Amino acid sequence: MSDRRTDILEAATRVITRRGVRGLRVGELAAEAGVSTSLIYYHFTDRAGILRRTLEFIIARADRYTAERDPAAAPLGPRGDLRQALLLELQDTPEVRENSTAWGELRASAIFEPDLREDLAKATLAWVQETAELIGRASPGGTAPEHAAAAERLTSLLEGLSTRWLSGSIPLEHARRLLGDAIDAELGAARDSAVRVGVAC
Amino acid sequence: MSDRRTDILEAATRVITRRGVRGLRVGELAAEAGVSTSLIYYHFTDRAGILRRTLEFIIARADRYTAERDPAAAPLGPRGDLRQALLLELQDTPEVRENSTAWGELRASAIFEPDLREDLAKATLAWVQETAELIGRASPGGTAPEHAAAAERLTSLLEGLSTRWLSGSIPLEHARRLLGDAIDAELGAARDSAVRVGVAC
Repeated sequence: MSDRRTDILEAATRVITRRGVRGLRVGELAAEAGVSTSLIYYHFTDRAGILRRTLEFIIARADRYTAERDPAAAPLGPRGDLRQALLLELQDTPEVRENSTAWGELRASAIFEPDLREDLAKATLAWVQETAELIGRASPGGTAPEHAAAAERLTSLLEGLSTRWLSGSIPLEHARRLLGDAIDAELGAARDSAVRVGVAC
Repeated sequence: MSDRRTDILEAATRVITRRGVRGLRVGELAAEAGVSTSLIYYHFTDRAGILRRTLEFIIARADRYTAERDPAAAPLGPRGDLRQALLLELQDTPEVRENSTAWGELRASAIFEPDLREDLAKATLAWVQETAELIGRASPGGTAPEHAAAAERLTSLLEGLSTRWLSGSIPLEHARRLLGDAIDAELGAARDSAVRVGVAC
């Protein structure tokens, strides 16, 4: 990806985070990215193209920061991998906050922007499938449809909790605890032992 | 409440559903409601006042349609009351669709509109408390903090599923099934018997 293209996608994410999808105008995006509007049209064709590529961009960023780990650390194991993949979506860092705000905004805007719906549905399905795979490894006893349903519940819950956190209705640590307990419940863990081992496992 | 005031709140809900919170301009609201802008300022003082009262209006509507039942029907019992209160938020009627779209839009907009945050946090807390009370009646064995945590998870999941449904990522019936199973899991019901008795219980 050219640096200019990345600059534009980073700028689009910032504009969406600040002003919402409906606040995204190509002129303002050009000013934010420090490029001409014609360069934006050259790379992305139209507003729908900008939104589609920005959605891909924030998904790639989330894939990266939810997979980050200390290479010297011991492997987390399947249950730890699942917890990490979901709980690292709830972090108070500028990148996660920006990414989650943009995702929530793209989700809410798809109600009004039919152009976005298909891409968002595909992205949601891919996320559910990855999560179902992690659940299957952490809980090999269940069936594939059970893992898929658990993945849909956990990722939907995460979206709901993330939006509550970002909109100031609950503190971040509380959202993490609720999600962690839901992961344990979906994996059939005893609630008591889950509380003892905490977030790391 | 005067009829004119109700007309304005109904119109505000329609405008938010169609164009989002950021698309709500007092001039457009006046045209939609068929009243003067000065009447809107008379009733609601400013834009923040309109948003606050619209939030109350859609909550009152949801309270009504989630409590509707045939007076001739047998009582549902505590578990059925809980299922009804949550599952009736996922109905493909114009009123529920409009109400849920407006709620999701107010939720997403609170990230950008600090004026909305406190009212939304209070409304969320009230909803969680009502749901926790229903859970307590359906599952009297648990503790109050357990009921509150379950209520937070179920209402957050419902928000996540509702937005996925409205944004075209999952069909309504699928969202209802996922929520129904989560209610059963929170109540510690045997999954098999829950499938047999279905939504009504």
